Amino acid sequence: MLEKTLKKIEPVDEALHEKAQQRLDILTKPQGSLGRLEEFARTLVGITGNTMPVLDKKVIFTFAGDHGIADSGVSAFPKAVTQQMVLNFLRGGAGINVLARQAGADVVVVDIGVDHDFGGIEGLEVKKVVNGTKNMLEGPAMTREEAQKCVEVGIALANEYADKDCNIMGTGEMGIGNTTPSSAICSVITGLPVPEVTGRGTGITDSAFEGKVKAIEKAIAINSPDPSDGLDVLAKVGGAEIGGIAGLCLGAASRKLPVVVDGFISTAGALIAYVLEPTCAQYMFAAHRSVEIGQRAMLERMGLRPLLEFDMRLGEGTGAALAMMLIESGLRIYKEMATFAEAGVSESE
Amino acid sequence: MLEKTLKKIEPVDEALHEKAQQRLDILTKPQGSLGRLEEFARTLVGITGNTMPVLDKKVIFTFAGDHGIADSGVSAFPKAVTQQMVLNFLRGGAGINVLARQAGADVVVVDIGVDHDFGGIEGLEVKKVVNGTKNMLEGPAMTREEAQKCVEVGIALANEYADKDCNIMGTGEMGIGNTTPSSAICSVITGLPVPEVTGRGTGITDSAFEGKVKAIEKAIAINSPDPSDGLDVLAKVGGAEIGGIAGLCLGAASRKLPVVVDGFISTAGALIAYVLEPTCAQYMFAAHRSVEIGQRAMLERMGLRPLLEFDMRLGEGTGAALAMMLIESGLRIYKEMATFAEAGVSESE
Repeated sequence: MLEKTLKKIEPVDEALHEKAQQRLDILTKPQGSLGRLEEFARTLVGITGNTMPVLDKKVIFTFAGDHGIADSGVSAFPKAVTQQMVLNFLRGGAGINVLARQAGADVVVVDIGVDHDFGGIEGLEVKKVVNGTKNMLEGPAMTREEAQKCVEVGIALANEYADKDCNIMGTGEMGIGNTTPSSAICSVITGLPVPEVTGRGTGITDSAFEGKVKAIEKAIAINSPDPSDGLDVLAKVGGAEIGGIAGLCLGAASRKLPVVVDGFISTAGALIAYVLEPTCAQYMFAAHRSVEIGQRAMLERMGLRPLLEFDMRLGEGTGAALAMMLIESGLRIYKEMATFAEAGVSESE
Repeated sequence: MLEKTLKKIEPVDEALHEKAQQRLDILTKPQGSLGRLEEFARTLVGITGNTMPVLDKKVIFTFAGDHGIADSGVSAFPKAVTQQMVLNFLRGGAGINVLARQAGADVVVVDIGVDHDFGGIEGLEVKKVVNGTKNMLEGPAMTREEAQKCVEVGIALANEYADKDCNIMGTGEMGIGNTTPSSAICSVITGLPVPEVTGRGTGITDSAFEGKVKAIEKAIAINSPDPSDGLDVLAKVGGAEIGGIAGLCLGAASRKLPVVVDGFISTAGALIAYVLEPTCAQYMFAAHRSVEIGQRAMLERMGLRPLLEFDMRLGEGTGAALAMMLIESGLRIYKEMATFAEAGVSESE
């Protein structure tokens, strides 16, 4: 399934960007004066291959997973918060629920690796691959087979929701400790030293921060992941929810659908997808610049410029929800504005 | 009326910011992790003096006016476009109409100084003070009395819509040639040289740009406006719509209502208001960083950090409409998220 999906990902048709710009240039405004809103419209036309794209069914996938490394003091919150927050998502009380309601997006909560059995709870997509990852200080976080399975969960969800006529997808995650594997992935793939790509996650102290950097360095040294092999990196120093996000990015691209990548952890997932098939970045929007410093190098590697700089570091898909509203703004401009001819307005001299 | 309004503007109650942050800190997220969204919520609480603010009635005022200086080759578009665009606004085909619809905001189009008689056209607020300004290369753009009248039009509209329970106001404008007076205002008040605060407006050529800089320098030299006297600057090198915006900012502040300041020209209007009463800046949100370079120094002077950097330069209130959605996001987070206690989620260790 993974191989098939990778083969299906095609470059977007650049000629469509020009075609979209031609329409933007006859709308009643100075050419280019709506800046990035025009860029979003062009990008959507290119991605979908449709000169009149539709964004009436938005879905944000919040993948939840636990991390063995969380037992090593890398987070300010106890591991149980992952499962507690899953319940909060299902009741609609979390940040992502609030912002997705405003954006008109559905939230799909996916248990891909939580260390807890939720039973047959309503509204939860149970696609559990692991009961939390293993502690990567003692060996690989997951087996290669588990890592691939996580990616395939994301691909399958992208396909399922594409079949349900969803026309834009967003990524999100919940997993206590998951900035740690994200920094590890970032360091391995970009080649940057760990201290340069590591932040304070939910808010750890100075001494805990030092411990986090050392833990990541040790995990990389012990497992020596191959930076050119996305599945190897994901298995050895990654996490289940990061794999799900990678798969969602690949699946969306294979279906010619835009995918809005949330913050730091989501960007690590997107980067795994990018290593597996670089073309998939053409289908991505980077939602926002996270407070977590490692995100910058990953976005640069993929050539993505985030929409927002709101000093956010929550995850869940919250940035993706905000970005979806603004991407929609670009599309509305493109589709709803009057042309110079329609409005009887004189053009530039 | 102006004097009375200036006296009514009070500093916001800083203690309310802390009170708002106390609520933000018990919501199910790491403290501060929603960054600027939290800032927007705090700011709204401070501005309104209400610990549970409401944003259910949004209005954007698009002030239209013409400029004598437009006859001197400072714009890429003919002067008639101002009146043509007013009709486009009224028919709902302009950028501001599209984005205001998405934001759930009404657009109030105000003829404060268009060089055209629209007659009794439906939907237009006719508050005409001048039939376009005079060419400021030959003397003041307006008399001091006209300038004050423009500001009072803005104040009266703010009061009228505050009485109609509007709870957030946005500024916008339309006026061929109006980046020229805006750069002039910016240079006079910030003291920066004209070439450092002048841009290409709707898109003029290199030689027209040189002419624009020289025209602004000449207008300032001829009129020698007093930088400490907002009305003097507005009258001599300003414009009617810029005065309306200044008045709207003052009126909103006097009614303890938030005002979302759009791009470059709106920021020039806000700066006139700031010179008249600096406290009014506490009631402002800066919507976006314009492509026009002069805006930066004006925002710095007022201590405002824009929400968006979208490379926009259209005006009309388009940035204000986008920003209103994001300010609302902050408020929704503040009001709708579950607390740790409500959700049964463990707090930070």
